[in-house]
Amino acid sequence: MQTQTLERMESDVRTYSRSFPVVFTKAQNARLTDEDGREYIDFLAGAGTLNYGHNNPHIKQALVDYLASDGIVHGLDFWTAAKRDYLETLEEVILKPRGLEYKVHFPGPTGTNAVEAAIRLARVAKGRHNIVTFTNGFHGVTMGALATTGNRKFREATGGIPTQGASFLPFDGYMGEGTDTLDYFEKLLGDKSGGLDVPAAVIVETVQGEGGINVSGLEWLKRLEGICRAHDILLIVDDIQAGCGRTGKFFSFEHAGVTPDIVTNSKSLSGFGLPFAHVLMRPELDKWKPGQYNGTFRGFNLAFTTAAATLRKYWSDDTFERDVQRKGRVVADRFQKLAAWLTEQGIDASERGRGLMRGIDVGSGDIADKITAKAFENGLVIETSGQDGEVVKCLCPLTITDEDLLEGLDILEASAKQALS
Amino acid sequence: MQTQTLERMESDVRTYSRSFPVVFTKAQNARLTDEDGREYIDFLAGAGTLNYGHNNPHIKQALVDYLASDGIVHGLDFWTAAKRDYLETLEEVILKPRGLEYKVHFPGPTGTNAVEAAIRLARVAKGRHNIVTFTNGFHGVTMGALATTGNRKFREATGGIPTQGASFLPFDGYMGEGTDTLDYFEKLLGDKSGGLDVPAAVIVETVQGEGGINVSGLEWLKRLEGICRAHDILLIVDDIQAGCGRTGKFFSFEHAGVTPDIVTNSKSLSGFGLPFAHVLMRPELDKWKPGQYNGTFRGFNLAFTTAAATLRKYWSDDTFERDVQRKGRVVADRFQKLAAWLTEQGIDASERGRGLMRGIDVGSGDIADKITAKAFENGLVIETSGQDGEVVKCLCPLTITDEDLLEGLDILEASAKQALS
Amino acid sequence: MQTQTLERMESDVRTYSRSFPVVFTKAQNARLTDEDGREYIDFLAGAGTLNYGHNNPHIKQALVDYLASDGIVHGLDFWTAAKRDYLETLEEVILKPRGLEYKVHFPGPTGTNAVEAAIRLARVAKGRHNIVTFTNGFHGVTMGALATTGNRKFREATGGIPTQGASFLPFDGYMGEGTDTLDYFEKLLGDKSGGLDVPAAVIVETVQGEGGINVSGLEWLKRLEGICRAHDILLIVDDIQAGCGRTGKFFSFEHAGVTPDIVTNSKSLSGFGLPFAHVLMRPELDKWKPGQYNGTFRGFNLAFTTAAATLRKYWSDDTFERDVQRKGRVVADRFQKLAAWLTEQGIDASERGRGLMRGIDVGSGDIADKITAKAFENGLVIETSGQDGEVVKCLCPLTITDEDLLEGLDILEASAKQALS
Amino acid sequence: MQTQTLERMESDVRTYSRSFPVVFTKAQNARLTDEDGREYIDFLAGAGTLNYGHNNPHIKQALVDYLASDGIVHGLDFWTAAKRDYLETLEEVILKPRGLEYKVHFPGPTGTNAVEAAIRLARVAKGRHNIVTFTNGFHGVTMGALATTGNRKFREATGGIPTQGASFLPFDGYMGEGTDTLDYFEKLLGDKSGGLDVPAAVIVETVQGEGGINVSGLEWLKRLEGICRAHDILLIVDDIQAGCGRTGKFFSFEHAGVTPDIVTNSKSLSGFGLPFAHVLMRPELDKWKPGQYNGTFRGFNLAFTTAAATLRKYWSDDTFERDVQRKGRVVADRFQKLAAWLTEQGIDASERGRGLMRGIDVGSGDIADKITAKAFENGLVIETSGQDGEVVKCLCPLTITDEDLLEGLDILEASAKQALS
Repeated sequence: MQTQTLERMESDVRTYSRSFPVVFTKAQNARLTDEDGREYIDFLAGAGTLNYGHNNPHIKQALVDYLASDGIVHGLDFWTAAKRDYLETLEEVILKPRGLEYKVHFPGPTGTNAVEAAIRLARVAKGRHNIVTFTNGFHGVTMGALATTGNRKFREATGGIPTQGASFLPFDGYMGEGTDTLDYFEKLLGDKSGGLDVPAAVIVETVQGEGGINVSGLEWLKRLEGICRAHDILLIVDDIQAGCGRTGKFFSFEHAGVTPDIVTNSKSLSGFGLPFAHVLMRPELDKWKPGQYNGTFRGFNLAFTTAAATLRKYWSDDTFERDVQRKGRVVADRFQKLAAWLTEQGIDASERGRGLMRGIDVGSGDIADKITAKAFENGLVIETSGQDGEVVKCLCPLTITDEDLLEGLDILEASAKQALS
Repeated sequence: MQTQTLERMESDVRTYSRSFPVVFTKAQNARLTDEDGREYIDFLAGAGTLNYGHNNPHIKQALVDYLASDGIVHGLDFWTAAKRDYLETLEEVILKPRGLEYKVHFPGPTGTNAVEAAIRLARVAKGRHNIVTFTNGFHGVTMGALATTGNRKFREATGGIPTQGASFLPFDGYMGEGTDTLDYFEKLLGDKSGGLDVPAAVIVETVQGEGGINVSGLEWLKRLEGICRAHDILLIVDDIQAGCGRTGKFFSFEHAGVTPDIVTNSKSLSGFGLPFAHVLMRPELDKWKPGQYNGTFRGFNLAFTTAAATLRKYWSDDTFERDVQRKGRVVADRFQKLAAWLTEQGIDASERGRGLMRGIDVGSGDIADKITAKAFENGLVIETSGQDGEVVKCLCPLTITDEDLLEGLDILEASAKQALS
Repeated sequence: MQTQTLERMESDVRTYSRSFPVVFTKAQNARLTDEDGREYIDFLAGAGTLNYGHNNPHIKQALVDYLASDGIVHGLDFWTAAKRDYLETLEEVILKPRGLEYKVHFPGPTGTNAVEAAIRLARVAKGRHNIVTFTNGFHGVTMGALATTGNRKFREATGGIPTQGASFLPFDGYMGEGTDTLDYFEKLLGDKSGGLDVPAAVIVETVQGEGGINVSGLEWLKRLEGICRAHDILLIVDDIQAGCGRTGKFFSFEHAGVTPDIVTNSKSLSGFGLPFAHVLMRPELDKWKPGQYNGTFRGFNLAFTTAAATLRKYWSDDTFERDVQRKGRVVADRFQKLAAWLTEQGIDASERGRGLMRGIDVGSGDIADKITAKAFENGLVIETSGQDGEVVKCLCPLTITDEDLLEGLDILEASAKQALS
Repeated sequence: MQTQTLERMESDVRTYSRSFPVVFTKAQNARLTDEDGREYIDFLAGAGTLNYGHNNPHIKQALVDYLASDGIVHGLDFWTAAKRDYLETLEEVILKPRGLEYKVHFPGPTGTNAVEAAIRLARVAKGRHNIVTFTNGFHGVTMGALATTGNRKFREATGGIPTQGASFLPFDGYMGEGTDTLDYFEKLLGDKSGGLDVPAAVIVETVQGEGGINVSGLEWLKRLEGICRAHDILLIVDDIQAGCGRTGKFFSFEHAGVTPDIVTNSKSLSGFGLPFAHVLMRPELDKWKPGQYNGTFRGFNLAFTTAAATLRKYWSDDTFERDVQRKGRVVADRFQKLAAWLTEQGIDASERGRGLMRGIDVGSGDIADKITAKAFENGLVIETSGQDGEVVKCLCPLTITDEDLLEGLDILEASAKQALS
């Protein structure tokens, strides 16, 4: 494999090509192929962008048909038939059955654009500047979104511009089992000199992906919603990684029965790995005036097309979500066993997750790296997350075959045993 | 045309569908078709995103072939054959012939992501926080980029977070013909109490697109480069709208013979309207550590594929750029004549631009709106720009046929006359 | 008493003249006299600025003698005999006996100026921008200091500029008895994605005066010092209100046996109510370059003169501090009894404090206001503090006679009983 | 002279003791005496704080009498007889005769506190965050005020917190004689994408003291006021250095016939070198709620007392201001001659100023330093100002005797000739 040009010309900012230093050429569902023809099972899936697998043939067909028809590809925020079809499908297939009523804002087609739009809208709507975010939260790296992202790697690389406009509070479980971290939030809200500027909104991931598969309790989320309602604070669920079925429901907040005021979606939203993002908002929050937030690629019609095809194919009934939940239990079971084995080896390991968003916390980034490096040798692409990279994280395609899923799990287990023996 | 769902579900932030309230369905090169089958000549071209026309068949073929091969679509920042091919093509077709040596950073696939990355990199590289930007500059709306964008519509909609980290200076010509605005910059740099924090970088568009087709003089740009060199300040050219051949050269700064330290590209970079962006930087400026700036869609392989096909097709020799220059002269000539006619009607109008990035300043947004509204009735999609929308702006596809170009110009002229008689 | 001019011409920002709407004319030690000749016992003492009483004759004599000699009054930061005498006295009487070695920075003569200088110095010394501060902390209202002040009254009156550069953490006892709030700080420091930018310094009041006489535990302070040392973070003690003997030691941190890296002093520092402030810093932290922080009144020689006289008179041995401690026990005892009586009336009241910085928390601002309003009617000037004004706060002069102290306590007790019966 | 303690214990931030390395002990009007009994004529006068001379006997008497009466010294913002007397005197002696109606806010007793209060009030009153300030402006160094101060020495010593909330524009004359710098301001105000956030206020010194005795033209000030009125922007005159008679009128803006919305005063306001400051505001701008801006020393009654005595003594008729104007002409004449001599020596020198706020620009800080160092040897205390310290600045007491004034001018002239021969 020729990699000299890549090494010479691409910025040192590159990361994944350091963990997986091969040139990939093809992919199908949960399988990647490199230039030497070697196959890998993919438990990374574009960090949650490929919930429906690589080159999903059903979705690809919709895309190819659209291209063949000379449909609009790029249209700023023109009205197009593809956009209309997507909105209708979203309403019929997703929103109405869940009793949700949202308006839709298409910002630039990336998660960080959606987060910037969401928090800005919340500020405008409430006339307050502060946003509460949580320890280990990840919401993007452009300057507005970065204020809500906890990771020092990004926060310390701004070149001398401190972020502003957000306050961090402890996520569920952050201070251990005995502490309900929302007590602190509630105390601060009621305290006129606690230093917390009354926030316009809270932004939360129900399961923190980059932060280490930290799963918020359903009661905790419900209480968080209650606090927001009681204090006239908007609740933003950032469902960019946990949404689109990843946790076993289309929206990750469905498990808790909460109704966010604003939702951000991206990653798997297009169904095919195309850049796409949107912000859903309760209609009365649509305080935007024409053109107050824009972006060249805010109307990427190929993504409208694949996204609509995806919704129709996978979300018209509950077959798919039940299948995801089933596979989630398979992964949970195998991860618990592996965690138990690791614990026997003296490693303080534990499993956690929701649906097919699952991880094993092995306590240190070094151990996790050893396991994932060995897994890659053995044909499995899997990454770590968490503040120290201490969580081996499974984000396989939701459409993965049972055969590939089990083979991936077998590889992981064997790799762990090889790495740590 | 059914538009109820669009009107009900899309956020009020929408803009173009207010000027062009039809549902578009198909497009080919410089022609758009709406749902009723009506055709329009497109002088907007995705605000400069469709330099190679809608559904360019050559580029589409590359895309369809790639899809057929089950090539990687989404790969985070994996090494892929498509990325390697793009980098090699960029180097061979674009950089080497121009004597440029740059490393490439693929941030999120939008212009604002590229700008955020560029200015952050400049700050890190120089250890200073300030960025000099210019009146009427537009560089994106995420919070970091917004600091460098002059438009109040965006600046006043942040919900109470002032932007920070940038200082505005007058663009070329801002104070009229007799004043070289760089005198002020140079005086401030040499003044220890002038209030200008010594900048890490200057960011400039050689022709301001959103700002009103304001064309910087080639001597002014050269002097700007000299000032930057003399004061150890980086020169960033934001070539997102003016690049990719729009001004008659691949990079807009080629006209002036300057060599930026950092270049941002997006919009027409993919050649097909796909979201795509990159930052070019002198190799010694690549101060990124692995992963310090990221984004889910930073490796959109469909865009690598179409972008490489575009470079090979249009930039392997100078045929295309000479053709763009020729068409630019056609537009300039017709615009000058139209401006002269407008002046006869008592409207203080003038033509300006470079290559196929041209405008007629008609002095007021109201007049410009009347002309473009009439043009749309007559089958021409064309928008305005400038601080008050006072510039009718031609950004037709560079690949437009002479026939369509002339027809578009005819429509514009007739519309102006209808609107103002 | 004529108050029309005062009401008409003074800004509505005035506060104390609302609680005590009389015109004061004279004062001696702990007694204030109004224009009608009525006397009041003063348990407010300039919010801790008059630790040595009003018009202390010993200190006044030094001032009058200095004036008679035509000594320098205002000297920017000139060297003067008065400044030298103050520095020598500070070193001999205060620093050396306590084993402290500090350099001295005289910023503008107010507490907020000292805090701005202290946190800026910490940032420069450590190359980090963040300052950790605590819930209910008060450190001043100029924009730099305000970032570390918790009170919303000030934070919400900045006119649209959010503060930046500080993170709030829970003060000792904030989450109740079972929780050591430093656990949260320590966890955040060790967490690479917890959202806490590694701070340059922690700023803390050992007893929060404005915040409601919140007393930090001596073990908590010791642990805080340990955390700072372990993470290379500077410890700033803001001793503006709690210092100068108020808690029964010259520095409030002496009780805990900690040694701050930086100390801010003001309020009672001049001993006579003259504006005066300084920053003490470990010598190796003196990273200032000449003139990097200035202020017109940074060398107020009348204050040097009275401050030196004060140190010599009251701090050359431990007689004074033992007397303060004794009086503190008297107040504590009476406050506990009053709290007990209040509790019997169904009000959840409790006493707290250190030395002569003491309060009774009566649970609500309304009740506290009733008590202090009645007290004023009865001839006692006393104020409330705390986030809701729920703490009746005793900051009487440390030099108060036993007779006045007991009379003041009698009035307070009687007033509480009148107010709440 | 013993200076070891001073050198060891005082922070390296000290400045004036570097230029004038002696220990001063006494002072009377325009004469300073050092510990060795050497006398100096004082052309610095506390950087404009001692307009009425050192130890002015009339003012001192008022102070000593007040002390003898046990008057309130420190009273937070209590109503006192001294405060009432000051307000009445201000109204009768200063405001009414000038047709001005202002309310008065006493913030902390330093200039920077007054500026922070003034700009915060302007923001609250107008609901906008931006403040326009000018090149070479100096308004203080606490973080809020620092945003409006141009000097890099301070701006670069914040330890990584960029200032925010202000935009710099060129002061009168900044771009040379042919350019009216307000053209740029007016253009930016009318430009929706010029990058200038519509300001709440403009803050301006009519003569920039620290910035180098830059004198704004009276027409320019009048036009500035007009622009502010036309755009609903508040005009703040920072009269901290130029006010209190320094330019030959009590308020420096009287010369131009403008009426600021807000005025800041400090420095010579107390008349005796005591820390004192206030903000004057048109009554309808008093948007403060009780206690929204505070400070311990906001009611320094010794300063009320001396300030009232000063107003009565010097401002009850126009005798004093005519005398200041006369002396100003003397200095101007001598400075012009000295400038002419310097020009003959090949140094591009010029005189400028208003009233007794005058300077000679000698083109470089090195030359200015040589002259002032030699002057100090010869018994004259005089400092430099300007961005490079290139302006030798005369701020002698307004009460200086003609004899001392002429002797000081003689020394300066002789020193210049010695230094440059």
